[in-house]
Amino acid sequence: MHDVVELTKALIAAESITPARGPVFDVLEAALVPLGFHVTRFVEGEAPDGPVENLLATRAGTGRHLAFAGHLDVVPPGEGWTAGAFAPEVRGDLLYGRGAVDMKGAVAAFAAAAARVPGATASLLITGDEEGPATFGTPRLIERMAERGVKPDLCLVGEPTSAHRLGDTIKIGRRGSVVIRIEVPGKQGHVAYPHLADNPIPRFLRALAAVDAIELDQGNAWFQPSNLEIIDVHTGNTASNVIPGAATARVSIRFNDLQRGPDLIDRVRAAVHMHAPEAVVEGRVFGDAFLTHPGQLSTLVADAIEARLGIRPELSTSGGTSDARFLVKLCPVVEFGLLNATMHKLDEAVAVADLHALADIYAGVLERVSV
Amino acid sequence: MHDVVELTKALIAAESITPARGPVFDVLEAALVPLGFHVTRFVEGEAPDGPVENLLATRAGTGRHLAFAGHLDVVPPGEGWTAGAFAPEVRGDLLYGRGAVDMKGAVAAFAAAAARVPGATASLLITGDEEGPATFGTPRLIERMAERGVKPDLCLVGEPTSAHRLGDTIKIGRRGSVVIRIEVPGKQGHVAYPHLADNPIPRFLRALAAVDAIELDQGNAWFQPSNLEIIDVHTGNTASNVIPGAATARVSIRFNDLQRGPDLIDRVRAAVHMHAPEAVVEGRVFGDAFLTHPGQLSTLVADAIEARLGIRPELSTSGGTSDARFLVKLCPVVEFGLLNATMHKLDEAVAVADLHALADIYAGVLERVSV
Ligand SMILES: [Zn+2]
Ligand SMILES: [Zn+2]
Repeated sequence: MHDVVELTKALIAAESITPARGPVFDVLEAALVPLGFHVTRFVEGEAPDGPVENLLATRAGTGRHLAFAGHLDVVPPGEGWTAGAFAPEVRGDLLYGRGAVDMKGAVAAFAAAAARVPGATASLLITGDEEGPATFGTPRLIERMAERGVKPDLCLVGEPTSAHRLGDTIKIGRRGSVVIRIEVPGKQGHVAYPHLADNPIPRFLRALAAVDAIELDQGNAWFQPSNLEIIDVHTGNTASNVIPGAATARVSIRFNDLQRGPDLIDRVRAAVHMHAPEAVVEGRVFGDAFLTHPGQLSTLVADAIEARLGIRPELSTSGGTSDARFLVKLCPVVEFGLLNATMHKLDEAVAVADLHALADIYAGVLERVSV
Repeated sequence: MHDVVELTKALIAAESITPARGPVFDVLEAALVPLGFHVTRFVEGEAPDGPVENLLATRAGTGRHLAFAGHLDVVPPGEGWTAGAFAPEVRGDLLYGRGAVDMKGAVAAFAAAAARVPGATASLLITGDEEGPATFGTPRLIERMAERGVKPDLCLVGEPTSAHRLGDTIKIGRRGSVVIRIEVPGKQGHVAYPHLADNPIPRFLRALAAVDAIELDQGNAWFQPSNLEIIDVHTGNTASNVIPGAATARVSIRFNDLQRGPDLIDRVRAAVHMHAPEAVVEGRVFGDAFLTHPGQLSTLVADAIEARLGIRPELSTSGGTSDARFLVKLCPVVEFGLLNATMHKLDEAVAVADLHALADIYAGVLERVSV
């Protein structure tokens, strides 16, 4: 089954809410094996985030090794679909079903492309845990590839990057993300006896004002400015006659390649400690910013898009994080896929014409790397 | 039964965790009726705060009408008493049991005093809901008194006011209490797309800094300075990629008679609105400050203390609120009672000698008002 529409429908019909495993991977494996791919599947992790299944398919051929990265898990469908979320159906120009654009359609398009360029060296890195915490997803798949010596030269992530029409946007980087927790301790007590307590809130306010005043950067040619948001303040105090014993805040920073996650944590800590030296400030980097500098890979993908659709894509770094943050450690990465308008929504749908066009574009990319 | 120790024991043995009703009031009524008191009992309110019982006992006589105000409800005993919390027992110099000092001992002492000064005009205003929300307690009792035309000239609240030794402190006023809720609205959104959201936290911080900077007063001859505490900050946001849609804070102010509760709410609102004009600021006054200016009533109580114990009490306005905040609308109020060291604690206990001394002092007060 190498027709892109039929394969997309078969993948949608195999319900696969995160963490995905089993039947949906059977469908993909059955499509890839006749194309000369060597398929290995890994069940990883335990509850609550697992077990989850990941699939690695490799095929030797000519030219550079292009890895296509994607996921077969989907977000829950929610209530209110016109037809069944897992009963794929073409109505008019559109194919409906959960995962149609994010991103079973793109996985099917890549399989169809691989069928059309049989001599290309290619692999598929497919996870069942992209919409979840990703703990047992792409990071584990990268470990398994390392164990087997699988080293791609270029990586194409098939997430839905197109904004208004297919081909208008490819992503050449993503911002990094860090979340920082601030706890300012005090001493709990009764409001009638404030001298016996130590209310942390006044210095907590000054510390957060200093955090809010941090100037990061103005962005650069490829990235918008880094942005810091204080997203939560909390004491847990429900009484009206108690001075709280501590106040906590959380800060979320989305940052560009002018910043580094650990440095941002240090800057926030320093701002807090100016006003609350005893505060505990702990951060977690969910992915550093990365940029695949515009060049060979992005040009090659843009050329394939222009050849098929007659438009030149914008090179973007906007939006949230993706599994590209893990893959960038392996090789240059760009992201290109379907329209994202209906992803994660009711009646998620893809234009049948877009599925065919995407398969053609992915085939164009394979042709360009395999020479 | 007009022996103060025996009556205290009988009251303790009648378990009466807030909201109190029934047996403990039977014990008191049985003690008061032989002393010439006309006793009326009222069951008030519904769950969750009620039903609760209140008792009004009145006796006509000579001189001014002195009302003794108190409560027969107690806080829960907690785990870990040496003997039973509701099995009163004298060990050494002390009588142990929940309510010994707060304030069944004082209620018994007043009954014993009334027995020793049979000609005095007196009443007892006893609630079963002082330790709870007081919704159906003293405020209802005041309504019932008004319905019956009962109007005391002076009121003595028997709460445990003594700090280090019996007689060292009487309270001639209490601070007021107001709690204010501040909500700064914004627009929820994703941290990756801050231009589509409106994070309320930066202006929330500025608004709270302005609230924290409010200067109230320096206190006066009878009161310590009014005090404002920000006691809670909250967004309810548990996600790490979401900008919250609102931020709330609560402010608690304990204030002296230089301030008025509604004015304080207005001042906090004005400070908030300088930085967050759309914020919602709502306050609740839990009692305005009051002062029974040092004079006839406090002098009379202090004289009775000095006659019995040889010390002159300090006139204080410190500490939390009490039901005196309701009674002050009827007549001048002072508070005097046992040592407060063990109130609300495990192994609550009163010195037997203090019970006898308190009955003597209350009798001295009755003698002084009845001439
Ligand atoms: Zn996706
Ligand atoms: Zn009490």
